[in-house]
Amino acid sequence: MSWDREGAERAVAAAVNYKMEFLEIALLQPHLVDAAHTRALLERNEMRAVCSLGLPQEVWASVNPDGAISFLRTALDKTKEMGAEALSGVIYGGIGERTGLPPTVQELSNVARVIEAAAAHAKSLDLLLGIEPVNRYETHLINTARQGVDMIERVGAENLFLHLDTYHMNIEEKGVANGIIDGREFLRYIHLSESDRGTPGAGTCDWDEIYGALAAIRFRGGLAMESFINMPPELGFGLSVWRPVAESFEEVMENGLPFLRNKAQQYRLVQST
Amino acid sequence: MSWDREGAERAVAAAVNYKMEFLEIALLQPHLVDAAHTRALLERNEMRAVCSLGLPQEVWASVNPDGAISFLRTALDKTKEMGAEALSGVIYGGIGERTGLPPTVQELSNVARVIEAAAAHAKSLDLLLGIEPVNRYETHLINTARQGVDMIERVGAENLFLHLDTYHMNIEEKGVANGIIDGREFLRYIHLSESDRGTPGAGTCDWDEIYGALAAIRFRGGLAMESFINMPPELGFGLSVWRPVAESFEEVMENGLPFLRNKAQQYRLVQST
Amino acid sequence: MSWDREGAERAVAAAVNYKMEFLEIALLQPHLVDAAHTRALLERNEMRAVCSLGLPQEVWASVNPDGAISFLRTALDKTKEMGAEALSGVIYGGIGERTGLPPTVQELSNVARVIEAAAAHAKSLDLLLGIEPVNRYETHLINTARQGVDMIERVGAENLFLHLDTYHMNIEEKGVANGIIDGREFLRYIHLSESDRGTPGAGTCDWDEIYGALAAIRFRGGLAMESFINMPPELGFGLSVWRPVAESFEEVMENGLPFLRNKAQQYRLVQST
Amino acid sequence: MSWDREGAERAVAAAVNYKMEFLEIALLQPHLVDAAHTRALLERNEMRAVCSLGLPQEVWASVNPDGAISFLRTALDKTKEMGAEALSGVIYGGIGERTGLPPTVQELSNVARVIEAAAAHAKSLDLLLGIEPVNRYETHLINTARQGVDMIERVGAENLFLHLDTYHMNIEEKGVANGIIDGREFLRYIHLSESDRGTPGAGTCDWDEIYGALAAIRFRGGLAMESFINMPPELGFGLSVWRPVAESFEEVMENGLPFLRNKAQQYRLVQST
Repeated sequence: MSWDREGAERAVAAAVNYKMEFLEIALLQPHLVDAAHTRALLERNEMRAVCSLGLPQEVWASVNPDGAISFLRTALDKTKEMGAEALSGVIYGGIGERTGLPPTVQELSNVARVIEAAAAHAKSLDLLLGIEPVNRYETHLINTARQGVDMIERVGAENLFLHLDTYHMNIEEKGVANGIIDGREFLRYIHLSESDRGTPGAGTCDWDEIYGALAAIRFRGGLAMESFINMPPELGFGLSVWRPVAESFEEVMENGLPFLRNKAQQYRLVQST
Repeated sequence: MSWDREGAERAVAAAVNYKMEFLEIALLQPHLVDAAHTRALLERNEMRAVCSLGLPQEVWASVNPDGAISFLRTALDKTKEMGAEALSGVIYGGIGERTGLPPTVQELSNVARVIEAAAAHAKSLDLLLGIEPVNRYETHLINTARQGVDMIERVGAENLFLHLDTYHMNIEEKGVANGIIDGREFLRYIHLSESDRGTPGAGTCDWDEIYGALAAIRFRGGLAMESFINMPPELGFGLSVWRPVAESFEEVMENGLPFLRNKAQQYRLVQST
Repeated sequence: MSWDREGAERAVAAAVNYKMEFLEIALLQPHLVDAAHTRALLERNEMRAVCSLGLPQEVWASVNPDGAISFLRTALDKTKEMGAEALSGVIYGGIGERTGLPPTVQELSNVARVIEAAAAHAKSLDLLLGIEPVNRYETHLINTARQGVDMIERVGAENLFLHLDTYHMNIEEKGVANGIIDGREFLRYIHLSESDRGTPGAGTCDWDEIYGALAAIRFRGGLAMESFINMPPELGFGLSVWRPVAESFEEVMENGLPFLRNKAQQYRLVQST
Repeated sequence: MSWDREGAERAVAAAVNYKMEFLEIALLQPHLVDAAHTRALLERNEMRAVCSLGLPQEVWASVNPDGAISFLRTALDKTKEMGAEALSGVIYGGIGERTGLPPTVQELSNVARVIEAAAAHAKSLDLLLGIEPVNRYETHLINTARQGVDMIERVGAENLFLHLDTYHMNIEEKGVANGIIDGREFLRYIHLSESDRGTPGAGTCDWDEIYGALAAIRFRGGLAMESFINMPPELGFGLSVWRPVAESFEEVMENGLPFLRNKAQQYRLVQST
């Protein structure tokens, strides 16, 4: 999770080892990243990448739109420098941002302005920009696929896409298929994350419904396995993972990854090998 | 199930009572049906209808294609006279037809010839003709949506459609969504039938996967509840329902029907009322 | 949700109308409740009751154990006065209490002391006392059935019981059945709450797994439907329900309640009627 | 599936290779088996075994009880000679036996007499005897766990046990958990077989419900993976597997077996390794 040089090298090595087609880089502190190092590392290993982030509290889009725009510009620049293809995640706010009230008109207006500016900057860099709805505890702004689509349609930029995550959908959608259907026009990226953020296949997500719906909408975007087994402490409050949700990194990779790959094959989202 | 005058009147009254939009008529002995009576009954109640059947052993399409064509012509004529819109079901053979071997080239060729002739006759009557794959024990000819589509594409008639049934799919498909996806081009009719042919919602079918996939392919065809609580004895061997699979007709209508309607609403296949 | 005289009368009338066997009373401000009024109301309607609460921030057990004990004593006294049988819920802390870190030894020790004292007071009143694990965002103290059982075994009082909630379990357990199995010795009460706290049957909970496991452990405790459609604003931050999770109270009662009752009947947790 | 010397050696080698704890031997023609060869093979590999069968038509218990008793005596003698621990399966009839009518009093009485005699002979050999309910198309006699238990209780022999199979339960039970619960007193053996008899994990069985219920009843019997990828032709009609239900033996072993083992670990039926 920590994207310093050593962390980057370990992550890319693991991605190569487990035959991943791409990698997601958590851009928690974009200005600190050694982009040239990452770019070389990715190129050397022929590994594609997507960056993701949530906004720090001082630049939450709902209350400090100008700060958010500035932060996202830096993050997009770094994304480009690293050779990644897209920036995504909770680009509209903090992970754990909640006022105690439903989103206000002003908050959503600020968010729309930030996304519009960020999408324009991303376009100038030939980057895609993704919006990830997260559950009610991690934000009060965009919790469902429908709300994500509403924001994308409101902003109207062509390089915006919807980024879904089954962990959040398992809480927020009335059947995960409904979220996939709501998002079908804009969905290019999905986190396949178990209900407790542990090993995929060992929780409460209905993977047959998920993969069935993805296959039925002819999803051709990125399928990313996500698990939170070694969390950096600064994410603790927002993500609230207090206990180990899997026994080990190996359990996730050796049980969860084959599970997801077999389901993808069963529903013909990937070719049988 | 028995479509004499009294049975027809009872069935239409129940369909009206439970606010069905259409009715399926089992055409077990087409030549005996009083079509004019049924037509008047349907018109008086503004009830739409679909006819269904399996072939009697003496006219199984695989071995007696000419007999099958003749039988289906009569059935289609009756379907038209009754004012129904389509004939569907195991139109390609017997319910319970099995040789003990996989289908042969000759058998499938005979079946294709029968369906081609029946589709042409149906077209002359402005009727649709449906093919229903059923499970491995009820036929060895067409068990999966994929096989049904293959037959439809082989014959190539425009008025052919695929008729699926979740009871059979629960046995034959690698995830019911896969069958729905395989059949999407031709699927116009689906039996929502529980895993034991009892009350929908009280078995092993994964209704969220089913409805999610139907919604995702934008299914707009007919959703028909099917349950086998009062079987005519002549269907006993083929269907092999030896014990009551629901407590009563009322249980099916008062538990099963609302269950299916609520799921259809959850997945936005019908409008909320 | 608001338990003033008018709210109490409305709630009891609805419970009678929908043939509930018991009612759960949210004791958010125990000292304000007119216990005599509630007692008379319950007796007149032959309605059983359970009280539930979370602690206000000034008396969180982890940091102010003496305050928590005092608050729970009052709540238990009111529970008794109202004629209810048990007090349950997040009796060990606030709904939304999180430090950003895993629970410390000191915090858990404080919680244990509070529960021990409260259980003793409850025993003197012939009341049961329940512990409800809630999800990682609502507390960092007790998230799983296993953790709830650990606390019950640590305190060791006979009148303690485990109170589970499928909404939280859908996030925290590695299969909801695992939580039911972990809690089997102490489980006397379960909230049947959908994955989004909306209408039961219209979310991501695997009700077949849930009811199957409850039947398999021979659960004989209380089955309570829970849905959050009209939230008091003071619960907003902790519960984080920002949007209507069901269309109406009627939808919950007329779709959700029959769904839960039919599943209970399917798995023989209640008698068929 | 064919238990000649070569087949036996291949099967035991595969069982060792995939770290099976025991093996199921199909005793289709008991009198032809080289029991001494199998016994030596099992002992050399420290492999436990269970034998299974269905009765040939000429000795169906319902119509020829004396013939069935004689056949089962031979099968039990062979089971003992091979060093296996139990004989199980459709010991009460043919795989595919159906009269077209529900079981009669006389048929069930004949079956009970056969099982009583076979159980007595098994007891004299210190063997267990299992009864496997199968679906409505494979027999009309015993389709559900409840019916299997009824027969066991009717006969009353101590060495009788219930042998369930998820493939059949997925068709016959109102939720597979219900069958597991019905059978809990006598259940010692379960076939973990996918809905289409193909690769476990890639069909419609609800494995979370299945494993959750098994864990909840504290099942400690044998968990056997079953798949039908290479069927002997003489089983064709009864089993009706007309098409390959998995791509290969390797797919079953390399996808299905880890899937089942991971689920067993998730629900704590086996120890994590």
